[in-house]
Amino acid sequence: MSKGPAQTGEERLIATYFAPLARHPGGLGLLDDAALLTPPPGSDLVLTKDALVAGVHFFPEDPPGVVARKALRVNLSDLAAKGAAPGGFLLALALPDGVKDDWLQAFAAGLGDDADAYECPLLGGDTVRTPGPLMVSITAVGFVPEGKMVQRRGARPRDRVIVTGTIGDAALGLLLLGEADAARRWKLDAEMRAHLVDRYLLPQPRNILATLMQTEASAAMDVSDGLAGDLGKLCRASNVSAEIDVARVPLSDAAKTALSVESTLIETALAGGDDYEILCTVPPVQADTFITGAEALGVCATDIGQIVAGEGEARFLRDGKPLSLGKTSFSHF
Amino acid sequence: MSKGPAQTGEERLIATYFAPLARHPGGLGLLDDAALLTPPPGSDLVLTKDALVAGVHFFPEDPPGVVARKALRVNLSDLAAKGAAPGGFLLALALPDGVKDDWLQAFAAGLGDDADAYECPLLGGDTVRTPGPLMVSITAVGFVPEGKMVQRRGARPRDRVIVTGTIGDAALGLLLLGEADAARRWKLDAEMRAHLVDRYLLPQPRNILATLMQTEASAAMDVSDGLAGDLGKLCRASNVSAEIDVARVPLSDAAKTALSVESTLIETALAGGDDYEILCTVPPVQADTFITGAEALGVCATDIGQIVAGEGEARFLRDGKPLSLGKTSFSHF
Repeated sequence: MSKGPAQTGEERLIATYFAPLARHPGGLGLLDDAALLTPPPGSDLVLTKDALVAGVHFFPEDPPGVVARKALRVNLSDLAAKGAAPGGFLLALALPDGVKDDWLQAFAAGLGDDADAYECPLLGGDTVRTPGPLMVSITAVGFVPEGKMVQRRGARPRDRVIVTGTIGDAALGLLLLGEADAARRWKLDAEMRAHLVDRYLLPQPRNILATLMQTEASAAMDVSDGLAGDLGKLCRASNVSAEIDVARVPLSDAAKTALSVESTLIETALAGGDDYEILCTVPPVQADTFITGAEALGVCATDIGQIVAGEGEARFLRDGKPLSLGKTSFSHF
Repeated sequence: MSKGPAQTGEERLIATYFAPLARHPGGLGLLDDAALLTPPPGSDLVLTKDALVAGVHFFPEDPPGVVARKALRVNLSDLAAKGAAPGGFLLALALPDGVKDDWLQAFAAGLGDDADAYECPLLGGDTVRTPGPLMVSITAVGFVPEGKMVQRRGARPRDRVIVTGTIGDAALGLLLLGEADAARRWKLDAEMRAHLVDRYLLPQPRNILATLMQTEASAAMDVSDGLAGDLGKLCRASNVSAEIDVARVPLSDAAKTALSVESTLIETALAGGDDYEILCTVPPVQADTFITGAEALGVCATDIGQIVAGEGEARFLRDGKPLSLGKTSFSHF
């Protein structure tokens, strides 16, 4: 018999760590089977789901708050590229034995900080035990005015190819975490090393550009598996090709320093994953509007090439010659 | 450089097994970052997320099609209890090394069968590698007319407590799978044993009752962690108590046979998990309408007791005396 306010272990875990984050009325205090959202009138629903596994997508010893924020941000980045405003998210958390209270406390704190910062509240989810690695699976819900979601398949010949921020930082950051000597070899000072590692640990999703994406972009995606491979996907979805001027691909000062020592790192920069910048195509007459608009919102946007007729090829040219990239895209399979 | 229609391993896996299921236009052929759904005008969005882990929620050797169908059905069951019509689902699948093509083929086939049967199409998701057990995390999206979601917190004193189907079959089925001798001891014939095991392996979500739930139920949830514990949750959410007549709790013939041999199995039936029936409360004047309406749709619904004023207690009475249940609810924590 269930006596008074008795709670199961799962109820206690949710009440302690996650219910305090679920302040949106649609979360129903995490006390119901489901979450409830009323879509803004005239809006379409944009749904995305990205999962992170300890030992695969992050290091088990990464700070739990950073893991939580990355798990939410990779989903926010998808919404940003689609031009969608965040509506909220659901969290599935698979916990191995031995996860400590202070880990959960820090995970929830990081998650709550970003839920507030990006106005994307926790609405519900599921907490389960696993004999395997910790896994975080997030589903984010966004809204766009009806018909305004920016798809991958809208690129047209002559459109400009534009990326936000800088490319390759996260891939170089991951190499730095794996090789103690790399920073010295690449002549990076402490600040440069920290910049690249931070870019790996914590994406900066460009949700501030959502409205601009809706009005100016013909096609878009977020760069999660490497610029070269992801541009190939966008080209295949749109049935066009692209010609990119490698010299125009935006690099951070830290990445430039490393590349000045080891020029072959350009492959890592172009084909490595975890950039979480927006890759989009914009009709030529709107390119300046997009770039100026993004800069007014504090986001650097760079024209790196153009869409051409073709069959799904992403060509990277240096001094007019094709750059041969070995592995073009990150894939676990 | 990405040449022509080159695909990553993940793209191939998605294209081979899952894109064929994503026939709803909102899935965008699983070729975009996100799915796109246009909510029916005047509707609210109902979102639910349940995850299953191999070795925890199912046996690794369970047929892959059954695992897929169970993973979808436990989410469909949440939508049913909320009165929501299925809109679609997103799938996160974490795959260990060594999962064979025929496993994926059978998994996708089972998933596709139920997506069709319940009109709940695959819209998107994520496929990741894991060094740990296989994990399936599904987020289902449903729609209800604005304001019509049936919450847990609406039960009022004098409401009748009603459950669909039969209770305890799945918990007994799980015991049968774990103990070779149990079927003989409980005097179950082969058909009875198969019935109980099937009820564990494959829930029967009551989505056909969605509209009836909206019009008649004051509160509802699905019974996933055991009737006793789940009724306690509903009572706490509604700030009421409940008095259940154990003799009226609906049992299958197979469960009755087992209980006639081992009467203490009533605890397993009332507190064991995986029923995936609807537990709801209905104002007394509407109880007959609900029960008759459900039966007209082919679902047995049984009045098992009433809501009373109280502070979240679920009391189970046998011959007017409280039945003492040991563990009231399934919890992994």
